[in-house]
Order: sequence, then C-alpha cells, then structure tokens
Amino acid sequence: MDKVGLFHFVAEPYLLDFRGRVTLPMIGNYLIHAASSHAGERGFGFDAMSERHTAWVLSRLAIEMREYPTAFERIDLYTWIDEVGRLFTSRCFELTDGKGKTFGFARSVWAAIDMETRRPTLLDAEALGRYIDPRPCPIEKPGKIAPAEGRAEGIPYTIKYSDLDINGHFNSVKYMEHLLDLFDIDRFKRQEIRRMEIAYMAEGKQGMPLTLHKAEVSEDHYELAICHEGKALCRAAVSWNG
Amino acid sequence: MDKVGLFHFVAEPYLLDFRGRVTLPMIGNYLIHAASSHAGERGFGFDAMSERHTAWVLSRLAIEMREYPTAFERIDLYTWIDEVGRLFTSRCFELTDGKGKTFGFARSVWAAIDMETRRPTLLDAEALGRYIDPRPCPIEKPGKIAPAEGRAEGIPYTIKYSDLDINGHFNSVKYMEHLLDLFDIDRFKRQEIRRMEIAYMAEGKQGMPLTLHKAEVSEDHYELAICHEGKALCRAAVSWNG
Repeated sequence: MDKVGLFHFVAEPYLLDFRGRVTLPMIGNYLIHAASSHAGERGFGFDAMSERHTAWVLSRLAIEMREYPTAFERIDLYTWIDEVGRLFTSRCFELTDGKGKTFGFARSVWAAIDMETRRPTLLDAEALGRYIDPRPCPIEKPGKIAPAEGRAEGIPYTIKYSDLDINGHFNSVKYMEHLLDLFDIDRFKRQEIRRMEIAYMAEGKQGMPLTLHKAEVSEDHYELAICHEGKALCRAAVSWNG
Repeated sequence: MDKVGLFHFVAEPYLLDFRGRVTLPMIGNYLIHAASSHAGERGFGFDAMSERHTAWVLSRLAIEMREYPTAFERIDLYTWIDEVGRLFTSRCFELTDGKGKTFGFARSVWAAIDMETRRPTLLDAEALGRYIDPRPCPIEKPGKIAPAEGRAEGIPYTIKYSDLDINGHFNSVKYMEHLLDLFDIDRFKRQEIRRMEIAYMAEGKQGMPLTLHKAEVSEDHYELAICHEGKALCRAAVSWNG
C-alpha cells in the first residue's frame, strides 16, 4: 500500500458557493473523507479504532488555498502522514487539479481518544510510523491562536440537530461553517480566504448555550472562537487576501 | 443510455447524525447529485442548459424513508423521469442497499427557468420524453401544503454565506436543514421522520430578513414555512413515525 493516498473529487455545481467556488467547509469534508479512507485502507481507520474502543479526533486543522476549484473542476487530493508522536499524529494534504496546478495545502493534527473516558490514548507509533512520508507541505503548521472571547462580544447560538456528529458532539466541519458565517456576505465578493486555521479544544454537546466571537486583529486577519460559559470549544484564525 | 440511472454512495461515518444515521439533507444532496448526473449523461444537464441560458430549478420534493442507512452502508440510488409536462417534469428516486432492501423513495418536480428572467421556459418534451420510465415509485406525489405562517410565530433568521447556492439564492438543501433544526434534538432520539415534503415557491436572497415557522397539525404531523415579509419562500410538511 502506497504511503501517499490519492482521492478524486469533482466540484459539483450544486455544492458551490454563490461565487461558483468550492467552500472551505466542503474542503473540510474532502479532507476528512481522504483522511478517513487513507487510514481505513491501511488498517487504522474508524472500524479498527472502534474495535479498540478508540476514535480519531481532529485537534487542529490549517487550510491554505491559492485558488478555489470552480464548477466541474477535478480535485485530486493527496494525503500522507507527516509525523507520529506519543499522543498526536500529523497528516498533510495537497489539493491539485490533476494537471499540475495546486489549489492548496492543508495540515491536520489528530489524537486517538478512548471512547469511554474521551481522553487521549497512546498512539501505535510503529503501525502509523510505517506510513510517514517526506512529501513537502509548504504551509505553516497550525499554532496557538489568541482568544477572541473577551475581545469580541459573543453572538448567542443554540446547538441544533444538524450540528451534531455521530458521537453526539458538535461536528468539526459545522464549526467552520458557523465561524465563516460571522463574516458579511459582501466580503466574499471582494476577497478570498487565503488561510483558515482551527484548534478544537473541547467537545460541544446538546443543550450547551454557545457564543460566537470574531475579533479583528488587522484589516485582513481575524481571530474567532466558539465558547460555552466563557470557555473556548474552538478557536480559529482567518486571513483574507489583500 | 439506460432510462434509469444508478448511482452509488456510502454512508460515511463523519457525515452521519448523532444517531449514526444518514440525515435528510444528506439524502437531499444524494438526490440532487443523481438528478444532475443522470440529466448530464443524457444531454440535458447543467452544461447543456447553461448554453441555452436556462437552468433546472427544483420546485417540489418529497422523500419517504422506511429506514435510514447507517455507517458504511452502501446506498444504491436509482433515478428516472416519471412525467414531462409543458413547464414541469417529474423525476423519481429509489434508495436501496443493493441487496434487496429499499431504504425509501423520493419524488421531485423540476422547472427549467430562463437564467435572466428567472421565469419558467417550455420544456423540450421530445428530448426528455425519450427517457420516461414506468418504474414504480409507490409514494404520494408532493402536493399542496397549508401555510404554517400565520398559525405559528416566526423565528427570525438572517441569510448567511453558507446558505447561498451558485445562483446566489438560498440553497434547497439548506432550507431542509434549517426546517429540521426547528425540531428539538430529543425528538430525534425517540422518533424518525417518515416523510418530508417541500414546495419551493420563491427565491431567497442575501439581505432578506426571514422568519421560520413550525405549526403542529397533529402529534406527529407538522407544517412548516420559511417566509420573507410574510410571503412564503418555501413550505414543508414533516411526518414522524408513531
């Protein structure tokens, strides 16, 4: 089995945004699909993890786009393991059009949690390490994001049916969607998001009253957060092109 | 080219609801994908329509589910044209597991609108009629839905970036999502939606303040609507199993 996995998608017109471009949450879905399939094909996917009462949890994600795919464009998504630590493993992605153009890159950090205690478990460094590949991923690693809560007033939000994933927690891609929806639609007419980065910090559940925060750092750079009772469930950073 | 199209999907765990079942909006995406691909392969898809400055618009949709697919279940989706009229064509769907089990059926009604005037255009009855198939679709056709607005107070909603489709209008599947989110999460723990039906009546656009309405008809039957200034953009009916 190759170390690098390759997955194909097509930018379906009915899934595009009003500008006719693939959205960041949709790219998030592609990345998770590729990560999940790549892991499954190599024996450390959802099924194998479930048997050991563990599950992969996305801890950090950074997506950097040079250009967004448009209607019917082919997306060749490459994914590979970059690093394996004691508790975290890092996985990279490259999105191309299959004809030499790179749309963008992404980096993700994952933990394997125990399904009962929801605490991180030690990774099987040997099994995972076998698949580490040195393929370059020329974007900055996801890092620490300053708290937007406290600097920006919170917009109240109630968790709904469509927000929950199979574990009963706020879906990682839905976080992205709600955060992007804090920006005015008009901004998307003038500018493009160059980089979005999210740190998933705690699990959101049914009944938790949430607040959505967006703090301007500079004209084209924002820090965001989704909080429950003042505590961040996730923090994010968004950079628009100039 | 066969009259009936067959498309394959897999119920990906990261796209399931908190009960581990495929959601109705996700089924909506599958249906639209199948409809769009079936039409495209037969020469009346997005591209061919665009050349004539027309576009397909979903007018009505009814989905009736006996059982919802769960993690990794295979979904074989059949779609075919049922009727072709002057201004509307009706398309049916059957969702199976590929091993003899039917998950459910759906019926949809489509119009071809002129991209400039946004008014319905005459259908090419000959081109479409060639593909009519008598395959049975044993569910009621989508019908008239009584107005929920006026009977139920409206919850204000502002259209956001993620709600808009490639035409800059409120996305058909997003309507489903927002309507389902009017039900309490706990209800999904006890019951299943047997049938959901939507009539798309007017196009929702950026800047329109909306109201979401949900009226109880009987214990397990609801009528819903999304309105702008008291005028319905869409109406829906939802029946829960007893």
